[in-house]
Amino acid sequence: MNPIQQTIRAEFRYAVYFTRGIFDSANRILRSVLANGEARQRCLFIVDEGVCTNERRLLAQIDAYCHAHAAVIQNVTSPIVVPGGEIVKNSPKYVDLVRDAVNVYGICRHSFVIAIGGGAVLDMVGYAAATSHRGVRLIRLPSTVLAQNDSGVGVKNGVNQYGKKNFLGTFAPPFAVINDLEFLDSLSDRDWRGGLAEAVKVALIKDAVLFGYLETSAASLAGRGTVAMEYVLYRCAELHLEHIRGSDPFESGSSRPLDFGHWAGHKLEQLTGYRLRHGEAVAIGIALDATYSYLIGLLSQPEWSRIVGVLLELGFSLYVPELECDGDAENYALLDGLTEFREHLGGQLTIMLLEGIGHGVEVHHMDPVTIVRSAATLRQLGRRPCTSRAV
Amino acid sequence: MNPIQQTIRAEFRYAVYFTRGIFDSANRILRSVLANGEARQRCLFIVDEGVCTNERRLLAQIDAYCHAHAAVIQNVTSPIVVPGGEIVKNSPKYVDLVRDAVNVYGICRHSFVIAIGGGAVLDMVGYAAATSHRGVRLIRLPSTVLAQNDSGVGVKNGVNQYGKKNFLGTFAPPFAVINDLEFLDSLSDRDWRGGLAEAVKVALIKDAVLFGYLETSAASLAGRGTVAMEYVLYRCAELHLEHIRGSDPFESGSSRPLDFGHWAGHKLEQLTGYRLRHGEAVAIGIALDATYSYLIGLLSQPEWSRIVGVLLELGFSLYVPELECDGDAENYALLDGLTEFREHLGGQLTIMLLEGIGHGVEVHHMDPVTIVRSAATLRQLGRRPCTSRAV
Repeated sequence: MNPIQQTIRAEFRYAVYFTRGIFDSANRILRSVLANGEARQRCLFIVDEGVCTNERRLLAQIDAYCHAHAAVIQNVTSPIVVPGGEIVKNSPKYVDLVRDAVNVYGICRHSFVIAIGGGAVLDMVGYAAATSHRGVRLIRLPSTVLAQNDSGVGVKNGVNQYGKKNFLGTFAPPFAVINDLEFLDSLSDRDWRGGLAEAVKVALIKDAVLFGYLETSAASLAGRGTVAMEYVLYRCAELHLEHIRGSDPFESGSSRPLDFGHWAGHKLEQLTGYRLRHGEAVAIGIALDATYSYLIGLLSQPEWSRIVGVLLELGFSLYVPELECDGDAENYALLDGLTEFREHLGGQLTIMLLEGIGHGVEVHHMDPVTIVRSAATLRQLGRRPCTSRAV
Repeated sequence: MNPIQQTIRAEFRYAVYFTRGIFDSANRILRSVLANGEARQRCLFIVDEGVCTNERRLLAQIDAYCHAHAAVIQNVTSPIVVPGGEIVKNSPKYVDLVRDAVNVYGICRHSFVIAIGGGAVLDMVGYAAATSHRGVRLIRLPSTVLAQNDSGVGVKNGVNQYGKKNFLGTFAPPFAVINDLEFLDSLSDRDWRGGLAEAVKVALIKDAVLFGYLETSAASLAGRGTVAMEYVLYRCAELHLEHIRGSDPFESGSSRPLDFGHWAGHKLEQLTGYRLRHGEAVAIGIALDATYSYLIGLLSQPEWSRIVGVLLELGFSLYVPELECDGDAENYALLDGLTEFREHLGGQLTIMLLEGIGHGVEVHHMDPVTIVRSAATLRQLGRRPCTSRAV
């Protein structure tokens, strides 16, 4: 009997909206995303505690919005509030909390889970939603720079297990993403800045023009200029979405260009016990791999200097004690990050380095001694504020 | 700022092989599925305890096969044996067992989990594999008629939670499926017969010619004739795969034609505390919905008679005490199955009925009183062996 060859072609569509004041009753975006001519849509809101702290009126606004648009929205219960940050991905109880609500409130594959929060909350809720009834509809409202320009617009979710970041997760395109720029107004400086690391990342591997914009706008961005931030957010989301649809959306290969700087970033988050936030760790990871690219002769000194310069001008620290190598380079704790990165993606180790600003290049090996030298270079750089000229 | 419209197009390919003696060293199918010119492939075997009981040499054969093909296969540990049947989907500990092994033995997105067993084991292992590292590669070796002609060749996985069948699960196309017909030789009569319910189902909604073949071969199939069984398996797998690629592979709509007879089947499994196996429950569900189709005037009496006839001739019982309705039709326990079915798939209730053999038709409402009458009709039919002429 001949084998039967199966080919399944699937298409996934969603829109990423940009707005202000999504829960103003006059804002019709959420209403229009939900309305489809059928009955009222059952909605379950899950909200990041940090957003509630920053936006004290949020829960009341959600309630008022659902009331004003009751012809379309059926809010099945009060919003469920969960902690923000990595803690929500580290304990299985939060995934269970969302699944319990999906079960109790009869959320089906045509109902909606609406997640409002930073990347960690969106990742956790996304995992719970994608695995309930083989996937209920998810609308993401990212509340941080990092989530609005990067993870929140993509197709991944995940939680941590066995001390490994995103060990559990799936690929699951959202039903829609709504970037409400007002959420950014109340962010702490750390969270405002954190997301800019991903902007530097995507510019470095894909778009020299965006990198130039980041350089000329670095002072404005560090000073919380909203015009510059909105441009950067939009362009990053665009680059991110283009990347996903263009190549290997569900990562069947071994390459993951958007994870430039992330092998070290992920490991540093863990080594610092999550004292570093994701964006802060990624900034160091970018600096480390840019320095490595420079030390092996791939990247020119002036370009390296511009990269380190823009990160420092945005306000990132580029060194933490966890980068110290006490003894032999082969026993350097950071190097476990390479193994874990390879294991998570699978296949051959594939790391993005830079051969120029806007031009990534993949390699399959990194030299431990040069990684240690890269870290030492970052230590010497210290924390002194500097522009590209000063490096 | 205009919304960004995202469209992701993805293609998934896999082959379904039919063979005998997959672990004979001379059989090169598994070797060729794994080999891709790269290094040795890391493989983790998970085996259904029931298969080990039936095939006492299986674990030794796997070991010998891996040894003989060590140039391609790296078996990371001894096969992990898990219980067969619904128990393996009811407790989270088996999912954890598989995930633990994926973690400990470094199974990455380019490594392989190879699941050998009945539908329940394949569903559970599939869920664990699909959610580890956002999906490691899964090769399914279905060991039962039911799994070889139906669930094992498809794109779903799942485990039970909150007492609800497949509450947790994902859509995840396998890397390959290998149907080893030798596994069927040692099945119990119940398991041999059980899978034929899905064959009757797919014939009734899609292929009158296959139904005719099932009628003329019913005695041979009931007597464990392998020639008839092989033809039926192949044709059912073909119909199943065509259905998946043709319409809505990941079930974004509310229609699920292949679940003809399953709303009642799933509920009867639960109401009988899994005393009924899946195929046995589905046979009753098919008979119930065929009878309902007849009672509302959709299906002719002779066609209804042929359907009930073939199920009885294959050896299925078409009545269990759990079908009894003690009081009011509105309080009939079986009806919860309709609600749960709707909730799992989402949107409007959509049930497949029959307007003829080979011709399904979808409805959005079922009348409780007529369901009770359908069950009463099945009770009257009793268990007497009968051919289509005798009904």
